[in-house]
Amino acid sequence: MKLGCCYYPEHWPEDIWVDDARRMKDIGLSQVRIGEFAWSRIEPEPGRYDWAWLDRAIDTLDNVGLEIILGTPTATPPKWLVDSMPDMIAIDADGNPRNFGSRRHYCFSHLNYRKECERIVTALAERYGNHPAIVAWQTDNEYGCHDTIVSYSESAKLAFRKWLAEKYADVGALNIAWGNIFWSMEYRNFAEIDPPNLTVTEPNPSHVLDYRRFASDEVVSFNKLQVDILRARSPGRDMIHNYMGFFTEFNHHKVGQDLDVASWDSYPLGFLEQFWFSDEEKLRYARQGHPDIAAFHHDLYRGCCTGGRWSVMEQQPGPVNWARYNPAPLDGIVRLWTLEAMAHGAELVSYFRWRQAPFAQEQMHAGLLRPDNEEAQGAVEARQVAREIALLETANNGQKSVAIIFAYEAAWLFETQPQGQSFRYIELVFEMYSALRQLGLNVDIVSHEADLSGYKMIVAPSLPILSSAFVDKIKALAVPILFGPRTGSKTADFQIPAELPPGALQDVLPLKIKRVQSLRPGLTEKGDDHDVSRWIEDVETDLVPSETLVDERGILFGKNGVNYLAAWPSQKLLRRIFMKMASDADVGICELPRDLRLRSLGDLQFAFNHGIEALSLSDLNLASAATEFLIGEENLPSAGVAVWRRQIESQNRA
Amino acid sequence: MKLGCCYYPEHWPEDIWVDDARRMKDIGLSQVRIGEFAWSRIEPEPGRYDWAWLDRAIDTLDNVGLEIILGTPTATPPKWLVDSMPDMIAIDADGNPRNFGSRRHYCFSHLNYRKECERIVTALAERYGNHPAIVAWQTDNEYGCHDTIVSYSESAKLAFRKWLAEKYADVGALNIAWGNIFWSMEYRNFAEIDPPNLTVTEPNPSHVLDYRRFASDEVVSFNKLQVDILRARSPGRDMIHNYMGFFTEFNHHKVGQDLDVASWDSYPLGFLEQFWFSDEEKLRYARQGHPDIAAFHHDLYRGCCTGGRWSVMEQQPGPVNWARYNPAPLDGIVRLWTLEAMAHGAELVSYFRWRQAPFAQEQMHAGLLRPDNEEAQGAVEARQVAREIALLETANNGQKSVAIIFAYEAAWLFETQPQGQSFRYIELVFEMYSALRQLGLNVDIVSHEADLSGYKMIVAPSLPILSSAFVDKIKALAVPILFGPRTGSKTADFQIPAELPPGALQDVLPLKIKRVQSLRPGLTEKGDDHDVSRWIEDVETDLVPSETLVDERGILFGKNGVNYLAAWPSQKLLRRIFMKMASDADVGICELPRDLRLRSLGDLQFAFNHGIEALSLSDLNLASAATEFLIGEENLPSAGVAVWRRQIESQNRA
Amino acid sequence: MKLGCCYYPEHWPEDIWVDDARRMKDIGLSQVRIGEFAWSRIEPEPGRYDWAWLDRAIDTLDNVGLEIILGTPTATPPKWLVDSMPDMIAIDADGNPRNFGSRRHYCFSHLNYRKECERIVTALAERYGNHPAIVAWQTDNEYGCHDTIVSYSESAKLAFRKWLAEKYADVGALNIAWGNIFWSMEYRNFAEIDPPNLTVTEPNPSHVLDYRRFASDEVVSFNKLQVDILRARSPGRDMIHNYMGFFTEFNHHKVGQDLDVASWDSYPLGFLEQFWFSDEEKLRYARQGHPDIAAFHHDLYRGCCTGGRWSVMEQQPGPVNWARYNPAPLDGIVRLWTLEAMAHGAELVSYFRWRQAPFAQEQMHAGLLRPDNEEAQGAVEARQVAREIALLETANNGQKSVAIIFAYEAAWLFETQPQGQSFRYIELVFEMYSALRQLGLNVDIVSHEADLSGYKMIVAPSLPILSSAFVDKIKALAVPILFGPRTGSKTADFQIPAELPPGALQDVLPLKIKRVQSLRPGLTEKGDDHDVSRWIEDVETDLVPSETLVDERGILFGKNGVNYLAAWPSQKLLRRIFMKMASDADVGICELPRDLRLRSLGDLQFAFNHGIEALSLSDLNLASAATEFLIGEENLPSAGVAVWRRQIESQNRA
Ligand SMILES: [Zn+2]
Ligand SMILES: [Zn+2]
Ligand SMILES: [Zn+2]
Repeated sequence: MKLGCCYYPEHWPEDIWVDDARRMKDIGLSQVRIGEFAWSRIEPEPGRYDWAWLDRAIDTLDNVGLEIILGTPTATPPKWLVDSMPDMIAIDADGNPRNFGSRRHYCFSHLNYRKECERIVTALAERYGNHPAIVAWQTDNEYGCHDTIVSYSESAKLAFRKWLAEKYADVGALNIAWGNIFWSMEYRNFAEIDPPNLTVTEPNPSHVLDYRRFASDEVVSFNKLQVDILRARSPGRDMIHNYMGFFTEFNHHKVGQDLDVASWDSYPLGFLEQFWFSDEEKLRYARQGHPDIAAFHHDLYRGCCTGGRWSVMEQQPGPVNWARYNPAPLDGIVRLWTLEAMAHGAELVSYFRWRQAPFAQEQMHAGLLRPDNEEAQGAVEARQVAREIALLETANNGQKSVAIIFAYEAAWLFETQPQGQSFRYIELVFEMYSALRQLGLNVDIVSHEADLSGYKMIVAPSLPILSSAFVDKIKALAVPILFGPRTGSKTADFQIPAELPPGALQDVLPLKIKRVQSLRPGLTEKGDDHDVSRWIEDVETDLVPSETLVDERGILFGKNGVNYLAAWPSQKLLRRIFMKMASDADVGICELPRDLRLRSLGDLQFAFNHGIEALSLSDLNLASAATEFLIGEENLPSAGVAVWRRQIESQNRA
Repeated sequence: MKLGCCYYPEHWPEDIWVDDARRMKDIGLSQVRIGEFAWSRIEPEPGRYDWAWLDRAIDTLDNVGLEIILGTPTATPPKWLVDSMPDMIAIDADGNPRNFGSRRHYCFSHLNYRKECERIVTALAERYGNHPAIVAWQTDNEYGCHDTIVSYSESAKLAFRKWLAEKYADVGALNIAWGNIFWSMEYRNFAEIDPPNLTVTEPNPSHVLDYRRFASDEVVSFNKLQVDILRARSPGRDMIHNYMGFFTEFNHHKVGQDLDVASWDSYPLGFLEQFWFSDEEKLRYARQGHPDIAAFHHDLYRGCCTGGRWSVMEQQPGPVNWARYNPAPLDGIVRLWTLEAMAHGAELVSYFRWRQAPFAQEQMHAGLLRPDNEEAQGAVEARQVAREIALLETANNGQKSVAIIFAYEAAWLFETQPQGQSFRYIELVFEMYSALRQLGLNVDIVSHEADLSGYKMIVAPSLPILSSAFVDKIKALAVPILFGPRTGSKTADFQIPAELPPGALQDVLPLKIKRVQSLRPGLTEKGDDHDVSRWIEDVETDLVPSETLVDERGILFGKNGVNYLAAWPSQKLLRRIFMKMASDADVGICELPRDLRLRSLGDLQFAFNHGIEALSLSDLNLASAATEFLIGEENLPSAGVAVWRRQIESQNRA
Repeated sequence: MKLGCCYYPEHWPEDIWVDDARRMKDIGLSQVRIGEFAWSRIEPEPGRYDWAWLDRAIDTLDNVGLEIILGTPTATPPKWLVDSMPDMIAIDADGNPRNFGSRRHYCFSHLNYRKECERIVTALAERYGNHPAIVAWQTDNEYGCHDTIVSYSESAKLAFRKWLAEKYADVGALNIAWGNIFWSMEYRNFAEIDPPNLTVTEPNPSHVLDYRRFASDEVVSFNKLQVDILRARSPGRDMIHNYMGFFTEFNHHKVGQDLDVASWDSYPLGFLEQFWFSDEEKLRYARQGHPDIAAFHHDLYRGCCTGGRWSVMEQQPGPVNWARYNPAPLDGIVRLWTLEAMAHGAELVSYFRWRQAPFAQEQMHAGLLRPDNEEAQGAVEARQVAREIALLETANNGQKSVAIIFAYEAAWLFETQPQGQSFRYIELVFEMYSALRQLGLNVDIVSHEADLSGYKMIVAPSLPILSSAFVDKIKALAVPILFGPRTGSKTADFQIPAELPPGALQDVLPLKIKRVQSLRPGLTEKGDDHDVSRWIEDVETDLVPSETLVDERGILFGKNGVNYLAAWPSQKLLRRIFMKMASDADVGICELPRDLRLRSLGDLQFAFNHGIEALSLSDLNLASAATEFLIGEENLPSAGVAVWRRQIESQNRA
């Protein structure tokens, strides 16, 4: 695994570039991402390119042997460009423009902006496509950041109509698919259809789901436009985009089909603060992030690129500027995050950013260096971990163990009709992921279109749109599989299946969901040693349940290894279910304390202590006096990492 | 009382209509509401009517003897109509359009949309007005649903100016009535006046109140337009509209003057979740609804139609889709709700809807049938209650007992100037209603214009605009009467009366409110065994108070049976006040446990257990070994109902 | 000190004016503010002035010897004026108009509205400028009330570009100052620059800060326009504006340079309810206001006018109408507030308003008189305090003791980039003020440009933009000085200083802030007997800290009397720090109970009991049997005030 950083030569006086490059090497970095926000310097006036400075910057980095990932600058079109076609900006749900003055001020559907992107990307690719220092390209930057996937512009409206016409051909088919008869919402032609916005009450959910599919497809084609240009002019370089955390607004699996490497931007502290975690978790992990946040995304994005190659393009190196509260990371945790990425198979961990900028929006975002050019804590840890990584042989990602099936459309669907406010798809997936990880298991998070053969256990937290083809695929697998609540609850058109949920799953599991209930906080259904909250389903079946509530209602049903969970589960229930599945699958598990996580990669075994207290690996029977540690030792301090070589006989241990 | 359902033949393949009709009869339903959202099928292209399908649907229902309530489809104008005059949609308070894509996408003040409504209603009335199966018409659907009463469109602005010119004739009179001198808000002519919207800080409250009166009057005239057309072309049929729960945006008393039957849509679980109830109540009654929610509306809407005729047009039969959380009703509670409506004098309980639709916005709203055509729990209970109703002779609503006076303008006024955030009119009324009902009393909720003679007790939770005529009316009554806080606090122009509150009431009760105070949560004034919260008034009077705080300040004052309560009361205080009033009025009361409610209708006595625990009617001295039950028995299980015949000597028991 | 009231003759029938004037005198008032909302009466039609009524009103007041403060009516332009140039209204952050219908419906940058203001102010000044009864003018009313400083109108955009061109001359300088290279935000000319509004994510903080400076400057010039006209035509009269509470949207120090008297509008109960105080404080002080609210503003605004002259232009006399909850003031507290203003050096306390208006927006705002013309509690207390004031010789404000340095730009800066949601500048200043006041100290709150010589202690709660000139100034002072967190953290361009925070302060205090952390509620750092919350900084220094956390990290560092506090402090920590500073400065302190406050003025010593319980001044060693009280006595009841003459030897007691 390589280390790198994000660098903005245009932000600094040219006379310190050489020193910057030298210091990067000295710390142990080998790759640098540059250029992705520099349009106004590359093309300061319409049509007038200034390559000189960028030539020099690239050469400066190249001269010390740094490899370069060059970003296309399409996330920050300059003011003169926006002023030349003011309707290129996106329109928000209230009908307001999303103006110039920060970044991502464009609508994916604006055809002339796409032309401008073609032009600038072509120019960049032609200038640097064959430069030996350029090893990869990053397209744009963080698609969707600041809620920029869905736009209600005129361009988007016209593109949506075209998308619908292509999908449905006949507007009558659309009327039926959406159930437009419901409230006289029938259309006579595609030109009558508007985006599902500012309606009196909620718009038709089928309308919304198609709009989100459309918006996601716009991202896919926008990205492909750039990739096609770059591949043609820069052969042999990796195509990369940097995804974000807990972000499901577009289909990353689809975008990933056009990439060589899926990268993501890892800010564990910011994500903990900004997302659904409880106050208790936000305090406990304020300086580490929840132990599963980074790993979840590593495992998710590894599955979002056809070849399974992935990186961390931006790694939090200190306090950030954008969360409600921004504490400093625990000393040592930047190192831990770096080794953790390695344990999950990353090719690169690139710190964001080289030096903290003293100006503009992100001036309070830490870098490896402080604004006064001294090393910040991030640099200290990067230097240490660079040495440690060198001790570890690169290994491939190892054998398949547990697969979680993730579907972006599920997120869109449940956001469109949650039915209960607390039913959040990404949280349900995360809960199941976390339960598996607390059993010490290696997890792959994959698309429902992925090859599932070879996995020993499969978990689909919820798969609301369930095709017969998918059911046929799982029929061929002889491993334990769990489907979570609301699986098979909708057709692809966002309708309830004629045979009721779980739809096509009934082919292998004879049960029907006859009624569902969402439960407000505090309203729970009692199990023996756990509570069901948020969601419960009434099941009609002759199957004997394998988990019941105290009132005898079944909440888990299985047949031939295929299981259906008819409730929102607690961690306690999940642990029991997964332990049973692992036992059936003959997968070794290890019940871990709350703050400890394991990961194996090839024959390397990693252990990470995300807690404040030290842990003893021997006490947990994870290590013994005989264990030879490559990194760390059996006593794992706060933020500590240990790595040792796994034994052959424990092959089955995840 | 009849049972019915809401049915949408246009949603289903025609080949199942016959079976649907047969099954409705089989369950015990006799009325069906249809048509209210079907405009796009009745008139698929401008001016081209398609009656054939509706003819067949009506005949299919008629053939098995079902009676039909036909809805006018004006809540869902088709897209082609909206596109032909895009300014017919309402404009929200932010100036945004309220677009096509769901329902109720029209502004009541748009004159050309009114013409279109005239046209479609006339066409419907001419086609079906004399069809023997048509027994009633429903105008539009749920006026005001999704916050659609007040619009800030150009049409509304022009209509408002006209309304003002008619009301005030002279703009000088308006300037005085509103007190426009206050901040140089004086107008020189009516054409200078805009809706009270997007002002820098709060607009003049008189301006707001007149705008809400105007908006309400627009509903009245919109409804009357349809009623007049229908009455002329469909003689002998009942005119109905379906009101909503806890909804006060327009004056239902005024709309009701043009109707034969006031109906309403009863969703006890959704209302509990969405309104002001405490978390404790929301958990305790999650699957039953608060015991007074349905009854409150039954008693309210009975008073919203001149003849006192009323129905439940939509009865929740299972989980709904639109609350934040949507649990399933307790088994048996749909039956309880149905018998409860009967006990309060309903003519019809119509379940919404026949079959759960698998598509569009309400696909998660339960019906009597599941989407797969099997019977849901609602159908099971409807079938049972249909048999039970047949056992009970219809009786009239019985003698007058307690009247609550309800004023829609009071709701508008306190929303415009709450003076303390927690002063909510509808909640105050509900609190008083609930206290009366927990004493076992029958309650009528009536307009201040209603005939009050014959009532044994009268309660006006608050009547801020109090005319001398009304005071004269109560002078003639020799029964205990309670006026709540802020009664008489404003003139009809939204000014403080010259003689101070309670204004004209001082004619019968010599006291003045010299100062009022709103209290933040936690700030209370101590009574002996109760707390005053939210609101307290400083009273200037020589009267000896009948309730005082521990510091001797009076909060209840009375003279000749007329009482004024100068505080927001707790349930404890209300119970004491009402017991005293009942004793003075010689009205029998019964202190009920929290979950039990009684209602008498003619000589039938009903008891309803809204709780989870069983209750014994004997233990409560409500029944004895000798009681002959028509329904149920002395042990009342959870969701249980008992009905027995009242004794003559207990006439005074409510 | 004089007493006065705000009076609106135009609201009342002319035949009661004489009686009103007589009663004002009778109560003890000597000044009356009139006219500030009367534009529609002064100029009922464009260009047609009606002076007659105002002539008579002024003469009526003059006839009984009342002095008049005449307001310019520019806060309430009439409808005809707005209709003549509809673009004169402000545009809010969502792009919506801020319409006519209440007040302050204008944009400060609209040039033609400025012309209209010139016209009406000139007309008023020419008519009344030399009237002997007119002793002062109030410009406009409460600049900024209802969030009216910042506007996004076309006028504002053009004026902003002009302001920028004047400030930067060259757009390249602006690009560098703002760091526009960051996200390709560079401009090619000033005409490309828009207000920082509706951007996709946060705009450049330098852009925002300049927009706020611009908006503030617009207020300054708007005010100066009026002052210049008035001074020329009404020589010898005081120029006054009435500021608001906890309001920092414009630079009051700058506006104050054009005024003779800074006045403010004091509503302690409303401010307590509406601002950040804890629930415990909101309940404890519901009827008094927090003990430091009024005093804080007295001391703040005394420093906002070059000569130190100040008044209370509007004094809450009873319940108000505009807070979420509006309880009544404790009996006696209006008197206390009045004497408290005197103790802090006010020239006038003017009650708002004479008589409660029965109409329009503020009809629930108490006056000295009730709407029925009887005296309300406010009048009772005003009459009493008028007599008491007469007993006390006027004295000057006394010697300098403690100075707090207040910077409006600091408020704008921290609002633009809080970095942690709970870092609120005004709250930090208030906390420090309150800690000082609980030690019995007299405090002046002054601009960083003020003359600091003569103060015995100086506290800068935070001074993020710290010039070398200011550091030079403090070098010359030999008194203890405390700088709070984030001092020196930014340049004037909103960049991090090259030498890191605290920037230029390093010149006298050798430390660097190498990292900052914001802490979510509940995340604290432990000190020995206190907790650090919200904010903590990591300090690089060789200095030995004078306060440390339990883990030894320093949070307070000092050298030669200059101290830097690297954390958000608790009251406990502040008390300890200030006691040490006071001891070093040889300033006498007195640890007061929570509800008691002291203030000295010349040789008068005041004590105020803001609590519900009585306090004994002897028990606190503040008085003895020998003390001769001018007002009150040694036992201070709830809302009680005592005044006595200070001894010469206790000169050093604040
Ligand atoms: Zn990023
Ligand atoms: Zn409905
Ligand atoms: Zn004011």
